[in-house]
Amino acid sequence: MREESVTRRRFLQSVGATGGAGALFATMGALGLAPAHATAPDFRAPQRSDFHLTGRAARKVVILGGGIAGLAAAYELGKAGYDCTILEARAVTGGRNFTVRGGTTHTDLDGHTQKAGYSPGTYLNAGPARIAQWMVTLDYCRELGVPIQPFVNTNADALIYNEATGTPVRFRTAKADVYGYVSELLAKATDQGALDGRITAEDKARLLSFLEGFGAIGSAHQYTGTSRRGFTSYPGAGDDAGTPLPGPAALSDVFASNVGRYFTFEFGYDQAMMMFQPVGGMDRIAAALTTAVGGHRVRLGAEVLDVTGRAGDVTVTYQRGGRVHTLVADFCVATLPPHLMARIPHNLGADVTAALGAFPAAASGKIGLEYRSRWWETDLRIYGGITETDMDLAHVWYPSHDFHARRGLIVGYYNTGAAARAYGVLTPDERTARAVAQGVKIHGEKYRTELAAAFSIAWHRTPYLEGAWTSPPWTSASYRLLLQPAGRVYFAGDWLSHEVAWQHGAFVSARAAVTALHQRVLAT
Amino acid sequence: MREESVTRRRFLQSVGATGGAGALFATMGALGLAPAHATAPDFRAPQRSDFHLTGRAARKVVILGGGIAGLAAAYELGKAGYDCTILEARAVTGGRNFTVRGGTTHTDLDGHTQKAGYSPGTYLNAGPARIAQWMVTLDYCRELGVPIQPFVNTNADALIYNEATGTPVRFRTAKADVYGYVSELLAKATDQGALDGRITAEDKARLLSFLEGFGAIGSAHQYTGTSRRGFTSYPGAGDDAGTPLPGPAALSDVFASNVGRYFTFEFGYDQAMMMFQPVGGMDRIAAALTTAVGGHRVRLGAEVLDVTGRAGDVTVTYQRGGRVHTLVADFCVATLPPHLMARIPHNLGADVTAALGAFPAAASGKIGLEYRSRWWETDLRIYGGITETDMDLAHVWYPSHDFHARRGLIVGYYNTGAAARAYGVLTPDERTARAVAQGVKIHGEKYRTELAAAFSIAWHRTPYLEGAWTSPPWTSASYRLLLQPAGRVYFAGDWLSHEVAWQHGAFVSARAAVTALHQRVLAT
Repeated sequence: MREESVTRRRFLQSVGATGGAGALFATMGALGLAPAHATAPDFRAPQRSDFHLTGRAARKVVILGGGIAGLAAAYELGKAGYDCTILEARAVTGGRNFTVRGGTTHTDLDGHTQKAGYSPGTYLNAGPARIAQWMVTLDYCRELGVPIQPFVNTNADALIYNEATGTPVRFRTAKADVYGYVSELLAKATDQGALDGRITAEDKARLLSFLEGFGAIGSAHQYTGTSRRGFTSYPGAGDDAGTPLPGPAALSDVFASNVGRYFTFEFGYDQAMMMFQPVGGMDRIAAALTTAVGGHRVRLGAEVLDVTGRAGDVTVTYQRGGRVHTLVADFCVATLPPHLMARIPHNLGADVTAALGAFPAAASGKIGLEYRSRWWETDLRIYGGITETDMDLAHVWYPSHDFHARRGLIVGYYNTGAAARAYGVLTPDERTARAVAQGVKIHGEKYRTELAAAFSIAWHRTPYLEGAWTSPPWTSASYRLLLQPAGRVYFAGDWLSHEVAWQHGAFVSARAAVTALHQRVLAT
Repeated sequence: MREESVTRRRFLQSVGATGGAGALFATMGALGLAPAHATAPDFRAPQRSDFHLTGRAARKVVILGGGIAGLAAAYELGKAGYDCTILEARAVTGGRNFTVRGGTTHTDLDGHTQKAGYSPGTYLNAGPARIAQWMVTLDYCRELGVPIQPFVNTNADALIYNEATGTPVRFRTAKADVYGYVSELLAKATDQGALDGRITAEDKARLLSFLEGFGAIGSAHQYTGTSRRGFTSYPGAGDDAGTPLPGPAALSDVFASNVGRYFTFEFGYDQAMMMFQPVGGMDRIAAALTTAVGGHRVRLGAEVLDVTGRAGDVTVTYQRGGRVHTLVADFCVATLPPHLMARIPHNLGADVTAALGAFPAAASGKIGLEYRSRWWETDLRIYGGITETDMDLAHVWYPSHDFHARRGLIVGYYNTGAAARAYGVLTPDERTARAVAQGVKIHGEKYRTELAAAFSIAWHRTPYLEGAWTSPPWTSASYRLLLQPAGRVYFAGDWLSHEVAWQHGAFVSARAAVTALHQRVLAT
């Protein structure tokens, strides 16, 4: 890209198309790997050399919001020498990328103040907590030197708990029984000619071969249990072939238990294992971005009061430490949650305000329960993963790191909508009591007696966020309007992407805004 | 157990029954958790206080073989003060628990010598490489302070490669298609009355509800693809909803590809995720056991020549450093591979020799390919896991640790039987060339050009082991004979358990031998 002969047009065409992924994809296609290949959208960061080519200078940019989108925008613009300033209302960068440790304090909109009493090394990823392999978030971890480790999103030994039955069952057992009976039904129907005329005899033979293995139904096409269900006592020495779990239950009981509704989560393109987390807390990403951007470029505790765009610049007024400040920049990248941005006075037009108001904010809550012992590992042999329930705590997460350590943190609820609001209206102590009472039903009294500390968050009641995520009106004029700059103000955030509630969405949206802004600077 | 009133009879009854697991199980049962509970067989290690109770003294024990069974026997007996000596013919303890690092040298029975050229930090677990959550191996990791980390045994983004088609497909894609078509077939058969009379109307409704989610077939009961298959380009910013993979292929093609045969591996009670590995190499377990036993109790390079049992002791003759030594002990625990033990002269009876000879040794091989870059992470977005093939390399393992590091090690083949023998007869360089040529078909030329170093093992051609594992004749008189001591000689090893080829089997067998030996010492 340093060749003098590169014209501006050719250069602009190449922006966003010369990244490694594009070149790679061509290679992979030739190998027949294209169908199996996966890539994040193409992106080429602005570079200092871009300005050498055009004779233009980098500009000054004010960024509203120091969450992942704002940090990523500043980071990528900074590579080309843009002079960025981030205004962040909270006391830390990261936004919903928020990791709670011992000593973290938090006051919600209802005036409840918590100070986390976690031990050193214990933390709760209160916001995003997992990263899929294809997500660009991992590229930032690699680029920024943030070490990663597996996040256990699926574990065959985690439990399914239906309050009506009151007896937890392991995923491995539930899956074996459901797959067994489903295979039996289809195999028998096939044997009796139900698929005749629909598929060929060869297909039928292959289907039956698959079902015999998949359901462990053997050539008799009858499900009578399988070692996949697990054991009361696992195989041992000498003549000890193990004690299989009693069962299986009858087909009707297995279907009635409705355990199968939890199986598909692990098939999701965004949730299938392997998943990852940064070592030491999700906020290691925000911290690394902040360091890369430069702490002096970030103004914490800065609450935006007004945004005024003009032909040649943008003026942002904000208050910080009780004083009002004004900042004039060439451009603005606004990454605040849309429903909050809609409330901030500006001169960008009523249509912009209306569009920002078209993004509904979702409720969600999480609690982190620190335990004095890792009884789920020693007693239940559950090393990470998620137990699913039909109670309003929804999920219980076992920790994916520090296996065999003395202490550990369980996510005692992670819920949304009505369940999140039901927990959110409670005081922090009441939330803990409710979560523990529900958890005792699954895990027994240790869930109460071993508890050391708790910290909960209700994102919809959290200042400067007031929501966990949004459901963007993707097909609306409102959504499309905000994909364009309002004069010199660009919008970015996971809410302007197709990966809402994922950091990937914030990153790719920031990249899109940065690309558009940079192309404009170079072209005009 | 320190109460003076404990009688010997009561004490002996309590051996093996007072462990934490037993007490726990009773508690869990009361909570209705018993069916979901899993535990290793009960075990209570001998303790110094046992002898205080009986007035007896600990004895001298010679242990043949410093693999996991031998080390575990010495470790557990050592807790009660037994004076143990381990005789190990190889240059390191661990047996098949063997981790290859830069500088590791290995000469096989065919005279091929390799010296591993791996970089610092790179290693190959040439033998056991994964641990299931329920396995007692994890208890030893916890007790010995060996840190563990997840082993990626299943990854939705790993590949399935059939040589006939020549195009790898990701597990997530293959699963989505097979589950989709299977669900469609059963749902349509159900709709058309094929299950009438077999299950109730309520069951049918529940089955259909399950299938609609499981197969992503919707209420039309037609599989037309799903985002679970994955994307060519994943969803991004603004209007970029991602580019789904082309497909799905027709039902007949999906069944013909036979990808479904690989799905059940992850259901196995011994292979289902989560799985674990020690941080830094599987030999950290052997090293920790060796340290706990005491290095002075381990004689490396000691080849057993003869075992002679008498009424009051056992004499073992061995050669070490060109000299012949004799060791007399109260008891012997023989943990050598049975087919090798059968060759050692002894006076334990012809029936013992015959029984030892009834265990066939299996062939298996593995190669560790170190790469200069982690192209499988950056290019293919595969972070750990196993690619399955129908070539004789069988499996390709991507590393489960040091994600995003500069280099990494791929297991380029892990095969058994004829495939292992086919690789085993080659020179190490020929094995590498063959494995790489096969791997290039799946991964492209980087599989060759990025290769930095290789090391391979053929367990069936490895001195003092001559096999990867055995298929014990569990129901035979031979097997039962060796579960009893031959005079003062006890046998132990994974080959005397129902978890052959797993360290769990070696541990529980050692525990059984130790328990029997200790009870005898206390009782006589």
